[in-house]
Amino acid sequence: MSTISIIGSGGMATAIAGRVARSGQTVEVISRDNAKAQALADQLASGAITGKYGAAPAGDIVVLAVPYASAAAVAADFGKALDGKVIIDITNPVAPDLSGLLTPPGSSGAQETAKGIPAGAHVVKAFNTIFGHVLAKGGRLDAFIAADDAKAKVRVSTFLESLGLRPFDVGGLQMAQTLEALGLMMIGLAKNGAGTWDFALNVDLG
Amino acid sequence: MSTISIIGSGGMATAIAGRVARSGQTVEVISRDNAKAQALADQLASGAITGKYGAAPAGDIVVLAVPYASAAAVAADFGKALDGKVIIDITNPVAPDLSGLLTPPGSSGAQETAKGIPAGAHVVKAFNTIFGHVLAKGGRLDAFIAADDAKAKVRVSTFLESLGLRPFDVGGLQMAQTLEALGLMMIGLAKNGAGTWDFALNVDLG
Repeated sequence: MSTISIIGSGGMATAIAGRVARSGQTVEVISRDNAKAQALADQLASGAITGKYGAAPAGDIVVLAVPYASAAAVAADFGKALDGKVIIDITNPVAPDLSGLLTPPGSSGAQETAKGIPAGAHVVKAFNTIFGHVLAKGGRLDAFIAADDAKAKVRVSTFLESLGLRPFDVGGLQMAQTLEALGLMMIGLAKNGAGTWDFALNVDLG
Repeated sequence: MSTISIIGSGGMATAIAGRVARSGQTVEVISRDNAKAQALADQLASGAITGKYGAAPAGDIVVLAVPYASAAAVAADFGKALDGKVIIDITNPVAPDLSGLLTPPGSSGAQETAKGIPAGAHVVKAFNTIFGHVLAKGGRLDAFIAADDAKAKVRVSTFLESLGLRPFDVGGLQMAQTLEALGLMMIGLAKNGAGTWDFALNVDLG
């Protein structure tokens, strides 16, 4: 049985951990605050474990479920401990006033994360276009991914399918820029035209 | 009965004109090449008319259905003739190799268009997240819009509903950046994970 490591203990970490636990896979929760990691593991109540912050995660797939503002620092704290891992970047690098993105022009949160991990690790963008509470509710949602490494992308696709999601590859890691813009667009949609945060974006193949 | 003016005679102009004609509204086709405008009007065969390139369009809503590379020049050719109009910018400012967007950092095709029109005209971003051939097929597709002027946005929403589309406001005109990124994302999706160009992105309200 696979172990999936999740760094973080906030809303998205909890939503993803919940789906992983329900899929029958082992969740390893890792947080700078070990009490928060333990609380989330206890809440999952399915053999979830906690890992040591900064040490090598147990899973080959590591979900970096922390805010954009701290992602680089967290990656630095783990350093070479992430070597060989598939890192899932879920960040939505949105300005506090939701007016735009905080990333440097021509880059994305995922590309910035990729700069700070060992050469043997690969970043895959995923989960940022699904609201945490919608993810937690369940259902077969569409999940867009972007990555440069083909093998890492296949692994994450398989992982997403194991959670009951429908993965869609949108291209190389630079396409994370479009997915992060889509994350911002969904926030704008929630605040304006949709009138609710309870929605998902789906691909209608006709 | 409303008249909708469409500047352009390419694939998207044809797809939009077809839906307008089927809705029972009058289409005015305007092209730098009047023969092309006449050919599209004849093809519509529903009382469609042609307008003089550079003169004031007949419709209060003017769809600027030309490529991003020529949008600014076309707006300049019309100049004050566009005063008071609601201009729909449909551009996807995508690089020829589809690797990224051609717009200046922090801007969008729609915002660039807005710089070149009279102060009494308003730009609304729309249609760029629906492939032309999907739009032409019909069906109740979701149509995302962004604009600063509230009245112009309401008019375009009503117009989109008259075409059988479901409009969704994503915010101010700067949010056109997210819609244009979404256009690029859809191209990446078509080339990668979707394996087809026959799809639409829909909002699932659960």
